[in-house]
Amino acid sequence: MIIGFIGFGKVSENLVRIIQSESIDFVTSTENRSPETIELIKKSDVTILESFPEVVSSSDILISANSPANALDVAKKYGEHAKGIYLDLNNVSPDTTSEISSYVNNFVDGAIIGKIDSDNPILYLSGKHADELLFFNEFMQVKVISDRIGDASLLKMLRSTYTKTLSALLIESRDLACKYDLEEEFIDMLTLTEGDDFRQKSLSRINNTLNSKKRKSEELKEIIDYFDDDLVMVKAALEKLNR
Amino acid sequence: MIIGFIGFGKVSENLVRIIQSESIDFVTSTENRSPETIELIKKSDVTILESFPEVVSSSDILISANSPANALDVAKKYGEHAKGIYLDLNNVSPDTTSEISSYVNNFVDGAIIGKIDSDNPILYLSGKHADELLFFNEFMQVKVISDRIGDASLLKMLRSTYTKTLSALLIESRDLACKYDLEEEFIDMLTLTEGDDFRQKSLSRINNTLNSKKRKSEELKEIIDYFDDDLVMVKAALEKLNR
Repeated sequence: MIIGFIGFGKVSENLVRIIQSESIDFVTSTENRSPETIELIKKSDVTILESFPEVVSSSDILISANSPANALDVAKKYGEHAKGIYLDLNNVSPDTTSEISSYVNNFVDGAIIGKIDSDNPILYLSGKHADELLFFNEFMQVKVISDRIGDASLLKMLRSTYTKTLSALLIESRDLACKYDLEEEFIDMLTLTEGDDFRQKSLSRINNTLNSKKRKSEELKEIIDYFDDDLVMVKAALEKLNR
Repeated sequence: MIIGFIGFGKVSENLVRIIQSESIDFVTSTENRSPETIELIKKSDVTILESFPEVVSSSDILISANSPANALDVAKKYGEHAKGIYLDLNNVSPDTTSEISSYVNNFVDGAIIGKIDSDNPILYLSGKHADELLFFNEFMQVKVISDRIGDASLLKMLRSTYTKTLSALLIESRDLACKYDLEEEFIDMLTLTEGDDFRQKSLSRINNTLNSKKRKSEELKEIIDYFDDDLVMVKAALEKLNR
């Protein structure tokens, strides 16, 4: 079986690392790629083809793992030529996912949860053809949610709604505890009931959020626009990050 | 050693259960108590004295575990007569704690974290005399935070700021997931990264909050008034609960 990648970044690199089987070969192309991407491709166990049309025509499964901004263009260009499954792993909204699916045969909506470069990322899938990818279970945890295109993307967005708002809450609470010089005690106290990894997880969430405040608040804005619901807590998180 | 209780509810009942030692006797009084309280006292391994002044004068350690509304009155009435440590376990604000301490000798500020009727409640203490209660370590986890009166209450309030706001976030996210008929999947997905007890803990937080919405929103209001800070997330939680 041949799995082809359109877009080769952290996700593709790690899928090649995780999915190791004698019966699976990976292909991609360096056509019009950046020097960094070409270097990454060369370091990976993947066959380099002349062009992307060649990647598309030789792949049994095509994986689109690009930047969210390119996901739709890639689908328009290559989607109808895919021979088998077209798996979209871009971090796009359910609406964009639906639009993408209109240009693609055998479309599967995918979302990776957990860190892709960890040992246990989880692949969420939805769509009528999702079951055909269940053999990935041999290499990583795979969950098929439903046969509705968009459900995997939606679920990832729901998760992100929770975790990003939680980060804003963590920032506010931690700052308040700091003001009273009780930061350590506050985190220790919560660790007792919230689980042993609370400290490490929370501090990493706080730092990640503060280090990419602008991007996080753009993502929160997208979430608010998408759901078009009265999300009091999410809106407060956006306000918190914008201060 | 004699430990006396002023106020006998869930906290006192469970302390008697937890602190089992041949060298420790418990006393309290049924004077002016409700039939429910008298029944609870009779079921517990505690000696019943005629009156509260007698409880106060015979106790080496006096524990005030009343309703928050009575905490100050109890301190005014009995505080100066306490022979040894006066431990306040009422869920009161740091300001009230400071006021209470002005009526009491050998005052220790205490807060119980975790469920008192569980096997592992944790006793937080602060104040100059807190160390003298470290022998409770034999029966339950004890943490002395500082010698400042009010720090134990403050820490409990900081914790409550976080957990109550988190509950509002959980309600909002869960409701959003429900709207798309993805509640189960949403909770499962978060369980993967937030810990195995996420489902049980989150649903119990959601239900507790919804079942006592009025009280929770009063508590949030107290928190907002007390800190007098620009707590965007906590204010949003209050707004959420008031809808």
